[in-house]
Amino acid sequence: MKVGIVGASGYGGLELIRLLQNHPEIEQIDLFTSSEVGTVFSQKYPHLVNIHDQPMKAIEPEHISKLDTVFFSTPAGVTTKLLPPLVGAGAKLIDLSGDFRLKDQGTFEHWYQKDAPPIEHLEKSVYGLPEWNKEDIADAEVIANPGCYPTAVLLSLLPLLKNKLIDGSQLIIDAKSGISGAGNKPSQATHFSETNENFSIYKIHQHQHIPEIEQAMNTFADQPDPIMFTTHLVPMTRGIMTTSYAKVNGQVTEEQLVNCLQETYKDSPFVRILTDVQKVSTKQVYGSNYCDIHVKVDPRTNQATIIAVIDNVVKGAAGQAIQNMNIQYDLNEKTGIDIIPLWI
Amino acid sequence: MKVGIVGASGYGGLELIRLLQNHPEIEQIDLFTSSEVGTVFSQKYPHLVNIHDQPMKAIEPEHISKLDTVFFSTPAGVTTKLLPPLVGAGAKLIDLSGDFRLKDQGTFEHWYQKDAPPIEHLEKSVYGLPEWNKEDIADAEVIANPGCYPTAVLLSLLPLLKNKLIDGSQLIIDAKSGISGAGNKPSQATHFSETNENFSIYKIHQHQHIPEIEQAMNTFADQPDPIMFTTHLVPMTRGIMTTSYAKVNGQVTEEQLVNCLQETYKDSPFVRILTDVQKVSTKQVYGSNYCDIHVKVDPRTNQATIIAVIDNVVKGAAGQAIQNMNIQYDLNEKTGIDIIPLWI
Amino acid sequence: MKVGIVGASGYGGLELIRLLQNHPEIEQIDLFTSSEVGTVFSQKYPHLVNIHDQPMKAIEPEHISKLDTVFFSTPAGVTTKLLPPLVGAGAKLIDLSGDFRLKDQGTFEHWYQKDAPPIEHLEKSVYGLPEWNKEDIADAEVIANPGCYPTAVLLSLLPLLKNKLIDGSQLIIDAKSGISGAGNKPSQATHFSETNENFSIYKIHQHQHIPEIEQAMNTFADQPDPIMFTTHLVPMTRGIMTTSYAKVNGQVTEEQLVNCLQETYKDSPFVRILTDVQKVSTKQVYGSNYCDIHVKVDPRTNQATIIAVIDNVVKGAAGQAIQNMNIQYDLNEKTGIDIIPLWI
Amino acid sequence: MKVGIVGASGYGGLELIRLLQNHPEIEQIDLFTSSEVGTVFSQKYPHLVNIHDQPMKAIEPEHISKLDTVFFSTPAGVTTKLLPPLVGAGAKLIDLSGDFRLKDQGTFEHWYQKDAPPIEHLEKSVYGLPEWNKEDIADAEVIANPGCYPTAVLLSLLPLLKNKLIDGSQLIIDAKSGISGAGNKPSQATHFSETNENFSIYKIHQHQHIPEIEQAMNTFADQPDPIMFTTHLVPMTRGIMTTSYAKVNGQVTEEQLVNCLQETYKDSPFVRILTDVQKVSTKQVYGSNYCDIHVKVDPRTNQATIIAVIDNVVKGAAGQAIQNMNIQYDLNEKTGIDIIPLWI
Repeated sequence: MKVGIVGASGYGGLELIRLLQNHPEIEQIDLFTSSEVGTVFSQKYPHLVNIHDQPMKAIEPEHISKLDTVFFSTPAGVTTKLLPPLVGAGAKLIDLSGDFRLKDQGTFEHWYQKDAPPIEHLEKSVYGLPEWNKEDIADAEVIANPGCYPTAVLLSLLPLLKNKLIDGSQLIIDAKSGISGAGNKPSQATHFSETNENFSIYKIHQHQHIPEIEQAMNTFADQPDPIMFTTHLVPMTRGIMTTSYAKVNGQVTEEQLVNCLQETYKDSPFVRILTDVQKVSTKQVYGSNYCDIHVKVDPRTNQATIIAVIDNVVKGAAGQAIQNMNIQYDLNEKTGIDIIPLWI
Repeated sequence: MKVGIVGASGYGGLELIRLLQNHPEIEQIDLFTSSEVGTVFSQKYPHLVNIHDQPMKAIEPEHISKLDTVFFSTPAGVTTKLLPPLVGAGAKLIDLSGDFRLKDQGTFEHWYQKDAPPIEHLEKSVYGLPEWNKEDIADAEVIANPGCYPTAVLLSLLPLLKNKLIDGSQLIIDAKSGISGAGNKPSQATHFSETNENFSIYKIHQHQHIPEIEQAMNTFADQPDPIMFTTHLVPMTRGIMTTSYAKVNGQVTEEQLVNCLQETYKDSPFVRILTDVQKVSTKQVYGSNYCDIHVKVDPRTNQATIIAVIDNVVKGAAGQAIQNMNIQYDLNEKTGIDIIPLWI
Repeated sequence: MKVGIVGASGYGGLELIRLLQNHPEIEQIDLFTSSEVGTVFSQKYPHLVNIHDQPMKAIEPEHISKLDTVFFSTPAGVTTKLLPPLVGAGAKLIDLSGDFRLKDQGTFEHWYQKDAPPIEHLEKSVYGLPEWNKEDIADAEVIANPGCYPTAVLLSLLPLLKNKLIDGSQLIIDAKSGISGAGNKPSQATHFSETNENFSIYKIHQHQHIPEIEQAMNTFADQPDPIMFTTHLVPMTRGIMTTSYAKVNGQVTEEQLVNCLQETYKDSPFVRILTDVQKVSTKQVYGSNYCDIHVKVDPRTNQATIIAVIDNVVKGAAGQAIQNMNIQYDLNEKTGIDIIPLWI
Repeated sequence: MKVGIVGASGYGGLELIRLLQNHPEIEQIDLFTSSEVGTVFSQKYPHLVNIHDQPMKAIEPEHISKLDTVFFSTPAGVTTKLLPPLVGAGAKLIDLSGDFRLKDQGTFEHWYQKDAPPIEHLEKSVYGLPEWNKEDIADAEVIANPGCYPTAVLLSLLPLLKNKLIDGSQLIIDAKSGISGAGNKPSQATHFSETNENFSIYKIHQHQHIPEIEQAMNTFADQPDPIMFTTHLVPMTRGIMTTSYAKVNGQVTEEQLVNCLQETYKDSPFVRILTDVQKVSTKQVYGSNYCDIHVKVDPRTNQATIIAVIDNVVKGAAGQAIQNMNIQYDLNEKTGIDIIPLWI
């Protein structure tokens, strides 16, 4: 297979290269750029010397359409314009940005403050959460790869919501992310001296992943209520933890919650349900495509705390995109992304 | 004034030395130890060379009682035995450990899994949260200095609860702390290679600060319901953020919440109410005795997010202890602890 | 005293505010800016809410000259133009940038790749290394505050060179700095995700502090040879360590080196000579104006390893600038900067 | 192939598991322990849930000798006793500890302060630096896997020494390591709150890697002089940089040094010679088996600065051990360790 990456310099792009380079079915990886045509990639990123020394290419539709799959790892608003002309030209298209995730144009424009993609493309794009949408993914031409926060939130809450074990009308989701989620563009918010040894809360009630989570809860679990969702920055590069709080319905027990999660994901190789642990940490999935989930009911308040951890750049971006590609090409889901976490 | 510190090697103790050393009313600081009598303190902690080069002393009641104030920065269970014989001997006693915070012996024993102090001493000890208990502190002989998490939670929630602006029956408090909260004793949980670049949740629903928070909410805000409280470890040394979620009562507006906080703390030099910010971060109080609070109502869910940040070792421990001492001796509350945060 | 800071938004400026705010002789601190006139400083830097809420002022000579001292914490090349018109107008001028450190215009232009200041101003400016130049500092109108790396290198090597105990013709200096040395302007080199968990070497043989160190070694220790000097970036915010290697002359012993250092600095409150230690670390001077020095002779190679640590923002910038101001005004050198290091 | 790991809980052991788990020729990995027999490994290390869920086994010679290769990742002094009885029993033995590296018993005992292994075993063990000792490795029964620091130092200096391009009599090597080099056992020196935001120098002139480096320089480059070697701890988990300083011989140019390195390693897949870079950093080899080398001559002092970076846990330990195993079994050197570095 021959694949291309648009936006390879970003962190999603770098991680796609890391994973695709060792993917046994990939024989060629083309990197596309609008601003650095001709630059040898390993001169910009010396960790890839002797690994990927090809020059970056211009984004030309005739070239791109000859590839099997093209990944877009571009800032919000870019694929809205770049992707539509390529649809139907031959390559499967996987968009890691948020442009094609929201089905409703008005919702997109409200939360992203940008023009939405054409409605016919929004309608045809498939939300690429493999554990919940595998059949549609297998047939999709355009995949909207999920956001990093939604991946952790949805994998941990959808089973419990769908099975009516928790009360979806009062969900509170407290999310924490490493700094790589902010991308590779320097800013005051990612400046080492002001980020190191610092923990912050940002975009309170305003994160664009809110409507994405709500849409997926509605689609996959018939859960229509608004959520309370906040995001924090942790002084580390990789990793997301989401801590969610929900009332359990009726007499539902912790055991039932655990069973529901285990049953839901018994055939999902990348979701691990943790039991009997005192501690859950982001490092236990570092560099890997795993999503680890733990649930605990507080007998004093009869509420459940549901915890999920992922590597935001892998299961929250590039790894999940490749998982989607594997499904589209009827490969084993784990091909090329069966990576052991780096505990240290 | 002459003061003593029992447990100076711990982080609360080290921070007491840092702050007391520049306190204009303190002329002598004695360090007490049970295990390292005679060791020159700056040989153990070279950052104090030329600053505090005295040997540590044995814990002898006759010596201790001649001091004006003695701070105890010891592990749970130590002051339960150490402190009672010293009561009434002359020195004011400020306990930074949790031993004397809970008024109910059974509650203490349930959460701490240790024998409780004698009931008569529990009853006489005063909870040292200066912004809420100044009069009792001024007269107290034994002060139970608040825990780090409770300080941030209580300062940010008590005004809103007391004024019935938020619904106290469904509080959810998601707390995050730097690693120094775990003290100076090495363990796997504080081992650099497994803590760095890692974010974890621990003691889910089981933290001993839960009954402390509930007791204070009941005492100061007439709020009896159990809380949902979880604690996370952030890969940084200092800093606590608590993110609390509460339904607002009736038609209460964000403005009313802000006004209530501002009004409550208008004479409290160490509490700052932040308005008009996109971001709140622990570094903005680093090394200082400030507690910064921000509140925002989400119009979509009609819930309030209430954020508080403190330096866990200062306002969450040593700084607050000195603030209590200042009040006991009728000094300006800020004496010796009017420290500017280190933003970088 | 009334003081002003030009370039307050930078890290040198922020640290000047932190230290001057608690300086007992300072009654007014004006902040000057060319680009943000009128902005309330604490809106930009919320850690200063309730501490420094004044708006920034335009850089107007008539205003500036009424102040007692003006600190310039500006990028290279700025004071070259900004400072000369202010000389003689009344205020003492302390420049934290490198513009006035090198006496030779050609050397400046070679290493800084910028136009040098007028020669008459270069000649009159005084190199502000208090432990070696106190008399000239006391009388100076313009002080060139030393660079961060040179401060650590010179304090640790000058005594040994001046007393001919080590061979100055073959000095090798391996320097390591925290990221705050790169200032507050975001760039790829200071971007958290690429700096965290990373150690790098930069500007190999090309750092502009090389001629500054050589000039001072020539001036204060009659040592004219070129040095070998490299600089590394450590994934932390504050702190510099310099590890220097030198052949000892003749039969000189470790004891003689230690004695020479102790003798040299016996009246210098901010220089501490460490003996009998297995380890030296930057954290032991964190946030303080100390420079800690340790020396050890390797009997196998008969070479000395000389280690110095400072906080680059304090003794390497703002703290030393205030030390210079104290000397100019005949105050105790330690006034306002007698700060205890934060070990944790 | 079936392999075993003695000391799997240590960081070398964990990294062996990470790499061997995806090694295409390995079908079984047994973990051996003296203290935790029966413990399911993934209960201790949850990042391995669903990956390595087998219980740990007792160290029984009859079991061990049926394996193809056994790796020992144990503290100093353990294999001295554990390994000799296993020699000749069938399995190839690869020791990641320092016990079998030094050929001279007296030297071992001086630097390690422990009893040396039997001389006959020392003599037969082969130093496993593949780029310099491939033929002996291919035939070896016992391999002494090199230390982390020596790997970086030797790969970067041996070619220049062997070809007499630099002066070996005055080498100065300034080494910096991440904290994982200290292993998984908690101590004050690895305690997060005292290690984070701190850079330290330790074991000045006393590191046990000194005689290992000197022995290899003598063996492979006929260079007998003592070296000056110091070690520093960087607040990060993984990564080593060594910065070495040497006089160039005669009229040798930078180009000659670069050519020599490139020529030496033209068939070595894991050594990359960097040219035309302003910066070298440990992150560029993170998680991988690469050693990146850069050399630069300072025209002012006619000395060379030679920089090497490795991941201490991979090329400095587990990766190199597997590289040795591959050579022993005549596999492609890169099998199972052809890992792309994680730049972020």
